[in-house]
Amino acid sequence: MTERGRDYHDRLLAFMDEHVYPAEPVYREQMAESGDPHHHPQVLEDLKAEARKQGLWNLFHPHPEWGPGLTNMEYAPLAEITGRSPDLAPEAINCNAPDTGNMEVLTLFGTDEHKEKWLKPLLAGEIASAFAMTEPAVASSDATNIELRMEKDGDEYVLNGRKWWTSNAMHRNCKVLIVMGKTDPDGPKHRQQSMMVVPLDTPGVTVLRNLPVFGYADREGHAEVLFEDVRVPKSALLAGEGDGFMISQARLGPGRIHHAMRSIGMAERALDLMVDRAQSRVTFGEPLANRANIQDWIAESRIEIEMARLLTLKAAYLMDTVGNQKARVEIAAIKIAAPQMALKVIDRAIQVHGGGGVSNDFPLASFYAHQRTLRLADGPDEVHKRTIAMTELRRRDPDWSPKKR
Amino acid sequence: MTERGRDYHDRLLAFMDEHVYPAEPVYREQMAESGDPHHHPQVLEDLKAEARKQGLWNLFHPHPEWGPGLTNMEYAPLAEITGRSPDLAPEAINCNAPDTGNMEVLTLFGTDEHKEKWLKPLLAGEIASAFAMTEPAVASSDATNIELRMEKDGDEYVLNGRKWWTSNAMHRNCKVLIVMGKTDPDGPKHRQQSMMVVPLDTPGVTVLRNLPVFGYADREGHAEVLFEDVRVPKSALLAGEGDGFMISQARLGPGRIHHAMRSIGMAERALDLMVDRAQSRVTFGEPLANRANIQDWIAESRIEIEMARLLTLKAAYLMDTVGNQKARVEIAAIKIAAPQMALKVIDRAIQVHGGGGVSNDFPLASFYAHQRTLRLADGPDEVHKRTIAMTELRRRDPDWSPKKR
Amino acid sequence: MTERGRDYHDRLLAFMDEHVYPAEPVYREQMAESGDPHHHPQVLEDLKAEARKQGLWNLFHPHPEWGPGLTNMEYAPLAEITGRSPDLAPEAINCNAPDTGNMEVLTLFGTDEHKEKWLKPLLAGEIASAFAMTEPAVASSDATNIELRMEKDGDEYVLNGRKWWTSNAMHRNCKVLIVMGKTDPDGPKHRQQSMMVVPLDTPGVTVLRNLPVFGYADREGHAEVLFEDVRVPKSALLAGEGDGFMISQARLGPGRIHHAMRSIGMAERALDLMVDRAQSRVTFGEPLANRANIQDWIAESRIEIEMARLLTLKAAYLMDTVGNQKARVEIAAIKIAAPQMALKVIDRAIQVHGGGGVSNDFPLASFYAHQRTLRLADGPDEVHKRTIAMTELRRRDPDWSPKKR
Amino acid sequence: MTERGRDYHDRLLAFMDEHVYPAEPVYREQMAESGDPHHHPQVLEDLKAEARKQGLWNLFHPHPEWGPGLTNMEYAPLAEITGRSPDLAPEAINCNAPDTGNMEVLTLFGTDEHKEKWLKPLLAGEIASAFAMTEPAVASSDATNIELRMEKDGDEYVLNGRKWWTSNAMHRNCKVLIVMGKTDPDGPKHRQQSMMVVPLDTPGVTVLRNLPVFGYADREGHAEVLFEDVRVPKSALLAGEGDGFMISQARLGPGRIHHAMRSIGMAERALDLMVDRAQSRVTFGEPLANRANIQDWIAESRIEIEMARLLTLKAAYLMDTVGNQKARVEIAAIKIAAPQMALKVIDRAIQVHGGGGVSNDFPLASFYAHQRTLRLADGPDEVHKRTIAMTELRRRDPDWSPKKR
Repeated sequence: MTERGRDYHDRLLAFMDEHVYPAEPVYREQMAESGDPHHHPQVLEDLKAEARKQGLWNLFHPHPEWGPGLTNMEYAPLAEITGRSPDLAPEAINCNAPDTGNMEVLTLFGTDEHKEKWLKPLLAGEIASAFAMTEPAVASSDATNIELRMEKDGDEYVLNGRKWWTSNAMHRNCKVLIVMGKTDPDGPKHRQQSMMVVPLDTPGVTVLRNLPVFGYADREGHAEVLFEDVRVPKSALLAGEGDGFMISQARLGPGRIHHAMRSIGMAERALDLMVDRAQSRVTFGEPLANRANIQDWIAESRIEIEMARLLTLKAAYLMDTVGNQKARVEIAAIKIAAPQMALKVIDRAIQVHGGGGVSNDFPLASFYAHQRTLRLADGPDEVHKRTIAMTELRRRDPDWSPKKR
Repeated sequence: MTERGRDYHDRLLAFMDEHVYPAEPVYREQMAESGDPHHHPQVLEDLKAEARKQGLWNLFHPHPEWGPGLTNMEYAPLAEITGRSPDLAPEAINCNAPDTGNMEVLTLFGTDEHKEKWLKPLLAGEIASAFAMTEPAVASSDATNIELRMEKDGDEYVLNGRKWWTSNAMHRNCKVLIVMGKTDPDGPKHRQQSMMVVPLDTPGVTVLRNLPVFGYADREGHAEVLFEDVRVPKSALLAGEGDGFMISQARLGPGRIHHAMRSIGMAERALDLMVDRAQSRVTFGEPLANRANIQDWIAESRIEIEMARLLTLKAAYLMDTVGNQKARVEIAAIKIAAPQMALKVIDRAIQVHGGGGVSNDFPLASFYAHQRTLRLADGPDEVHKRTIAMTELRRRDPDWSPKKR
Repeated sequence: MTERGRDYHDRLLAFMDEHVYPAEPVYREQMAESGDPHHHPQVLEDLKAEARKQGLWNLFHPHPEWGPGLTNMEYAPLAEITGRSPDLAPEAINCNAPDTGNMEVLTLFGTDEHKEKWLKPLLAGEIASAFAMTEPAVASSDATNIELRMEKDGDEYVLNGRKWWTSNAMHRNCKVLIVMGKTDPDGPKHRQQSMMVVPLDTPGVTVLRNLPVFGYADREGHAEVLFEDVRVPKSALLAGEGDGFMISQARLGPGRIHHAMRSIGMAERALDLMVDRAQSRVTFGEPLANRANIQDWIAESRIEIEMARLLTLKAAYLMDTVGNQKARVEIAAIKIAAPQMALKVIDRAIQVHGGGGVSNDFPLASFYAHQRTLRLADGPDEVHKRTIAMTELRRRDPDWSPKKR
Repeated sequence: MTERGRDYHDRLLAFMDEHVYPAEPVYREQMAESGDPHHHPQVLEDLKAEARKQGLWNLFHPHPEWGPGLTNMEYAPLAEITGRSPDLAPEAINCNAPDTGNMEVLTLFGTDEHKEKWLKPLLAGEIASAFAMTEPAVASSDATNIELRMEKDGDEYVLNGRKWWTSNAMHRNCKVLIVMGKTDPDGPKHRQQSMMVVPLDTPGVTVLRNLPVFGYADREGHAEVLFEDVRVPKSALLAGEGDGFMISQARLGPGRIHHAMRSIGMAERALDLMVDRAQSRVTFGEPLANRANIQDWIAESRIEIEMARLLTLKAAYLMDTVGNQKARVEIAAIKIAAPQMALKVIDRAIQVHGGGGVSNDFPLASFYAHQRTLRLADGPDEVHKRTIAMTELRRRDPDWSPKKR
């Protein structure tokens, strides 16, 4: 850990203790009172104001012009800490997905107009944004399957298609979408796609419904969005025509690291809850913590958390030193390993909590639902295993290809 | 399978195809329209009327006086079928928990007044009932922990305490609770408890809130219920004072079989969904069903379902032939094995469905939530494993006891 | 269980207690004294004589002309019992593989000469036999891969090829091989193969070496056998030319059931050993059996054993009632499930035994090696999962085939 | 990696490629020819000479006076490399257990006489040594259970007791034992034990037998050793009377790191073998490497290896920076995690190899046997999980103790 990283780390921990954890019951109350799962509660704005005041703001942003310019190695432990209170902490410090990824994309590939109009208010925490990639009709982990059409018509593009799992689209502050589609369906496999910036209120954009995760309607929402003859100017394009796949690759690395670290933070909190419950709950004359099976679960959880954390840090280190492309296998590995680890730890914690564990009296069931989704979001585990396997197969036989007999 | 069992089996399958599955979208629509998670939709009453007309009614009830008098072996495959559509089918044929267990208890231990006032309308599907056993403050799988007090005061008992996971208490038709409490907290360990019949509208009974399961507010509800100076007449007692533990034991065997069979039905439906999706979804140029990992999941699911089913049928057979007490190990075994198996199968099916799998566009996430809860309801797995281990330890050393060195 | 089955069952249990278990240390001593892993010890002949005297002989043989004519359902529990002492019991009652399969094949497809010369002495326990199917150079679970050539030359066939895992070939009494090869390499896929009866001392047959299993050199041996210009008369043919695949299918069903039941017997013995050790071993002031993790292992083992047993009995029942072909999925299922279950149970038992568990002071490590091999013998698990998956895929879509898009 | 570490790393890799791997078939041949599982083959002495010439010698030894003085972080990757050829590489560079641990103990706690007589020839690779700790009659992971008596009698100690799993005792060069016993059975729990240096040829020391591991008689052997009235002078004592437990703790940390790294090396080699086989073996018209289930195994193996490696390196780093005592949890964690990971990877590799995988044509089955033993050697997993759980329980509640209610 660098000195700078350590300083942020300590300050963020203090912020969690002093502001975030105490805000959790307030948050639950404000959400319950509103009767609206997508309500934007005041407590969150209060936390944002406080975080900004303390300089705990936009920590994710690697470009010194726009943020503190932390490395992935420096930011990873901070992302982990925010994972311990996932409903509040990431957004409180303006580091929630998919805004982080969108801000990076706008920084790297946006026009000056994009930066002025969208990036600045996003960095200020004034608006929110969504990323429209996945489609209901096709297996979207294979980018060549994307069907949303972006047809040029004079000085405009006309968008037609349907997206779902567009996270953040129900957020009360959401103003803009980054949309992946095809400008050239007959082009080379990885040059067919483009990305565009589409204001949410553009005519023809309809947020059809929210998708629940297990039974949870997440506040930020995961929307199904319909695009019908949506017209945007040429300037909506990020980078150039056909750059969509390239941008999505650039976007994914950091996003996966952030998710993985938050998974680890959730697992840590689940382990804390498991230990506390095991110590306080008595059955058949003994605290659960006396039982060897519960002790085994605690020990296994500690080991598994630590291994996943180290792998994530290694991926962060490689991204910082050799770049996202060369860290590809490690990024795929943590994309798989972190949620699977977290699910195991959370499931044990649920079991130790009895009925309370599956209810909302503890955050465990919602953690579980969230982590289970991560095994699918941005491609199911199996797609990422395939990537890793190909690398291994080529390590032993550089000429190997799946077609070969 | 007996001829009678086969006949019910075929008729129930036809009823599922002709009435239940087609009612599923109607049900979802009526529930959504109502805006009330505990709404009692018309489609359910229509199904009940049809089922009753077809003689598919109260199939669970083993006493010929009150139902068809099927054996556990005959009923088990029917319970499995209803598990394929758990929101509708069990209630459609008046075989939903905890009404089934309550009806059995009232049949075996109720007074004539109980039977007239509660059993008959329950058997007629006119009212619903709940079972108040689990308490939030203690590990209720150990019955000696139960804290709800039932103090005699003249001709009455006065009940004070708090229950949760009181399933069915949010049901719009719920009229009556069977309550477990302690009449003699200082008596011998298994004679401290009594069970009483308590109308839901008795003064002092307050349904505080519903407990969600992984974000799902189940229609029938799992309530936290407060008992404050609730006065019931002596005649509220089921069997005698101190018989509560005995009754709970009698109640549990069949309940566990029914749950296990419905778990298997859910697993079968999850496997159907997994296979269908694997055949229809194409990635990287091939249907998922072509992939060896998906094929492995399908095969493993088939094997695991079949093994759990056979174990459940064995338990049913033993209950029919040597009685619930002697089938204790087998009942504990299926209580553990069936939900664990179902969770594995459902989880694979979710993975094959991608994002859709965790949403409500498929019933998989709600199946998962339901089955995960069964690993805790009526005692966590670990309590039942302990029972089985004790039997094994005594099989090899009849004198063995945990204290022994 | 039929009355006849029950009678054999009780008598076999008595035979185990009175003769087999007491013979185990004698066996170990005689083997150790000989210094030869393939030694045929006297104690085995003594057991065979006793078993034959008691009418516990050839119990496997389903054809009343040649054996007691037990059904699979009747024989399965007997095979399980012999699995508890796998080095002695199966051979003591003349029911050891691959002799059992060979005797069935000779009964069904052998000529009168084959029966006189080989079947009779096999049934009398005077000689042993081996089955040469698997080849080192190819994945033999795909029968079309078989490379051993059987070329017609006048009145003879000339065999050339190499086999391995030819079990029993090191047996001191082994006199004959049943060999699978190709008479028509260009014929239709499942008509290329033939089976022939080849005396072990035929010129050109060379037993090259024994293959150890883990570090164990099994007494009966698993040999690599070379066939160089081996000439056999036309009458060596079992059934007709091109019937090899058909015969191998007929052979496999019963063999798999027998293996599965013996796996279950081994698992039962491992569980007994685990329980005994847990009760007698004290660490940190308590017997291991007091620990909740060990209790969990015991309970899980009991559940898993029982489920595998029931699945195997179902397969046996189906073989008896609808035939091996229709029981195909169930036979594949137990082929996979029984050894996997046994490995889990045995592994837990090893862990409870500490260092002793991996040594030869207990039979656990050798059980493990044996069961691990069964996940590969006669086709790896993955091949059998494929079979099951195909059936499931066609259950939902009768036209489905792997090629289909 | 330091520059020095990198240099050793590259040179060791070259040594493996140029000398060790080519020596493997020679080793197998010389061992087979000898007919003696404990034969000391010439090829090993040749490798030792070469390694010594190249300065690849005693790399483990952290004390610059006696070895290169590498840190744990520097040595760990070297130990991993030797794990790829476990029969040859560790001994070739004079870094095989238990000699390494014994050399450390003699360095730290030996008298000048011990160093002259035993340490120097050990460091020169001229003799071998064994460590006699585990006893057959008691659970030796609890050091208070140790029963071997060391009674003072004038100027001598008289040793009586029985040890087993005394690794290296069958080594043809083994000359000396370090023996753990009790000098003060009634003293405080961790002051009862002492350690002594006992020449193997001392009267009263009898090597009774070798213990096989899954059928394998390891060359170095794991012996049962009887001590009957064995007389050693007072100067046999390492450190002081009652220091035995302290010495064993000092010994264990590095030993566990070395074992863990070699486990990782074995897993790497198993993965290489798995990949190579998957690419070369064709079934049903495709190389196994085309199959998604095999690809999953490869990817999971890569992920699991990497996580275990990072955890081991972290433990090494902590040992170097904060000391073995403070790295206690991490050392316990890798003691559990590394062999479990290796077993999973090796088991998958076995499955991909078919029958060959369980034979000795590949090193996989022997790797498996070796790694399975590591889950028991030096305390079963469960003892180490307990250590970790206690730390976690105290992290949340510093006053927590197992007795507490």
